[in-house]
Amino acid sequence: MNNFIFQNPTKLIFGKGMIARIAEEIPIEKRIMITFGGGSVKKNGVYEQVKDALKNHNTIEFWGIEPNPSVETLRKAIDLGKKEKIDFLLAVGGGSVIDGTKLIASAIPQDTDAWDIVLKGSVDWEILPLATVLTLPATGSEMNRGAVISNSTTREKFSFASNCPVFSVLDPETTFTLPKNQIANGIIDTFVHVMEQYLTFTDINPLTDRWAEGILQTLTDIAPKIYENPRNYDLMANFMLSATMALNGFIAFGVPQDWATHMIGHELTVLHGLSHGHTLAIVLPGTMRILSESKGDKIVQYGERVWHIDTGTKEERIDAAIRKTEDFFRSLGVSTRLSEERIGEPTIAEIERRFTERRVAFGENGNVDATIARRILEDRM
Amino acid sequence: MNNFIFQNPTKLIFGKGMIARIAEEIPIEKRIMITFGGGSVKKNGVYEQVKDALKNHNTIEFWGIEPNPSVETLRKAIDLGKKEKIDFLLAVGGGSVIDGTKLIASAIPQDTDAWDIVLKGSVDWEILPLATVLTLPATGSEMNRGAVISNSTTREKFSFASNCPVFSVLDPETTFTLPKNQIANGIIDTFVHVMEQYLTFTDINPLTDRWAEGILQTLTDIAPKIYENPRNYDLMANFMLSATMALNGFIAFGVPQDWATHMIGHELTVLHGLSHGHTLAIVLPGTMRILSESKGDKIVQYGERVWHIDTGTKEERIDAAIRKTEDFFRSLGVSTRLSEERIGEPTIAEIERRFTERRVAFGENGNVDATIARRILEDRM
Repeated sequence: MNNFIFQNPTKLIFGKGMIARIAEEIPIEKRIMITFGGGSVKKNGVYEQVKDALKNHNTIEFWGIEPNPSVETLRKAIDLGKKEKIDFLLAVGGGSVIDGTKLIASAIPQDTDAWDIVLKGSVDWEILPLATVLTLPATGSEMNRGAVISNSTTREKFSFASNCPVFSVLDPETTFTLPKNQIANGIIDTFVHVMEQYLTFTDINPLTDRWAEGILQTLTDIAPKIYENPRNYDLMANFMLSATMALNGFIAFGVPQDWATHMIGHELTVLHGLSHGHTLAIVLPGTMRILSESKGDKIVQYGERVWHIDTGTKEERIDAAIRKTEDFFRSLGVSTRLSEERIGEPTIAEIERRFTERRVAFGENGNVDATIARRILEDRM
Repeated sequence: MNNFIFQNPTKLIFGKGMIARIAEEIPIEKRIMITFGGGSVKKNGVYEQVKDALKNHNTIEFWGIEPNPSVETLRKAIDLGKKEKIDFLLAVGGGSVIDGTKLIASAIPQDTDAWDIVLKGSVDWEILPLATVLTLPATGSEMNRGAVISNSTTREKFSFASNCPVFSVLDPETTFTLPKNQIANGIIDTFVHVMEQYLTFTDINPLTDRWAEGILQTLTDIAPKIYENPRNYDLMANFMLSATMALNGFIAFGVPQDWATHMIGHELTVLHGLSHGHTLAIVLPGTMRILSESKGDKIVQYGERVWHIDTGTKEERIDAAIRKTEDFFRSLGVSTRLSEERIGEPTIAEIERRFTERRVAFGENGNVDATIARRILEDRM
């Protein structure tokens, strides 16, 4: 196990009816900006619950943070927040709204341009406190510091470090009206978050291995049932909790991490507009295949503990584990091949060019460069 | 899953050489009381590392917090802390030193007697910040709010809620010189902490079930190896991390809890001086046996996932799981029967009398009263 430092101060407020609690969690003297996406919260009752809880607070609203939140949209919220002397942010929505709000909270206290903050990776001044009401289990942003922001002018997508939310309300009932493709993306995103932290070497940390496998087992158990019963409270609660636990640091104690799949996936999103989860479903089987030499022992462990693959040679087990993974994604209704999305050599060449220019070195061995990324993508044709 | 609120702000600083970090974690203007147990930290180098790290800080020392820390000892530390205007506590030791220091940190700011604080269960004033350097993995106190304090005059042992440590340093190398019986007690304490939160009903939270089983699997995997290799860094790191994770709230999201075994065990400690872990090894198999009707389905799940018991009738599986549990404790070198410790009917009668007087109702069903406690203890004769 490697040395590590861990701290996660986010207060989780979990369960039905818990949105009302935000009234007592936010000091009454705060000037709050509530941030939203495109309006689904007006259909599922979340907007009313939030407004009712904060009826005695001083609030303004900012609407229109889009999926893969763009710095262009967020600059408008930052300008508004400065003008209105906002000193508390409440993000109501999924990971995109939360990620965007992390940039707003980071940018309001200073005059640095928002995209410069993203490129810098973090800030050295005090970030405004932010909190969340989550409506889409997927990114884990409700209980971590990270945020991923897109620039629609330069067609780039990068992550930066903000603060953990001071609290996050997770009411599984808010997810009852999610469309199937968003549930699929959330399950895939959660699954691959775990894999990025887990599928490296064996025997580094047997406890976090078990915990990572526990999330994967829970997801594979509940995914088919969720599709049949999207309004089953316990199923959605298990999904929602799994998504938060997949990226809040709990399974990352003292272990190396990968993240190559995410980095390649981000490029497919900015170049083709594919949803984040969908890009991960396409890329991950390729990462497993092309890096199967260094990841082989862990793939075998994964196959055995998550998919009960306990016979065959090492190569056969690796093949079976990759196939099971791809089949799982396909069972959720997403395509897993670039050719299915009519993406081909020009995109591979562009990603190779970008990674060459940026001199990237992703993966737990720091060996996923432009050439390896090309091989991973070629495997996914 | 039940509604829940979770927050754990403790900063974990984990790994070899990390004690030096405390210098930057404690503000230089603080007046620190460093608290210790009986002196083992002078033999294993921890004392020197702590003193060296804090050589530029303002510190005083308090020595002699005993196993099952007594309010009588702690009152002396509280008086000293008030006199010296202490405003930061650093506990260096195992769970007893940390628990005792939580009472010191709670009592210094007010004039309420320390035992009254324990009986009240919590305080409504600001507690002094405390931090820890852990040397004995067992209680989990390094990352939770709880503390258990004994009164040697009244022969009582109760828990109360203080604050989470602001940080805890866990360096597995500090455990290399632990005697075998302390390692055994730490493994048993960790194991039973998990069981108190896990062995209730099935299908409440499949994710925390997996995580609880992950700790149990890790413990049963590493325990025999630790006995062979007590200076193996990775083994001790796995043990140390497991102990902290067993009682920091991570496996308790939205689940009912039991704690009857601990409550009965505390009485055996105050009446006979048995170590805490040892009492749990004696009591737990009885709790499983006597409550096997309500806990049966979960015992079967536990047997299958932790001990690979996958054949036989339900009754046979329950029997096998209880036997495996007791055998595991015995393999660590502790006795598991009251008769082996020459404890008999007079003690059972006294515990029954105390529980009747206190009108206790322990367990996830609130049905472990004086009569059930007697039956559990009779099962352990």
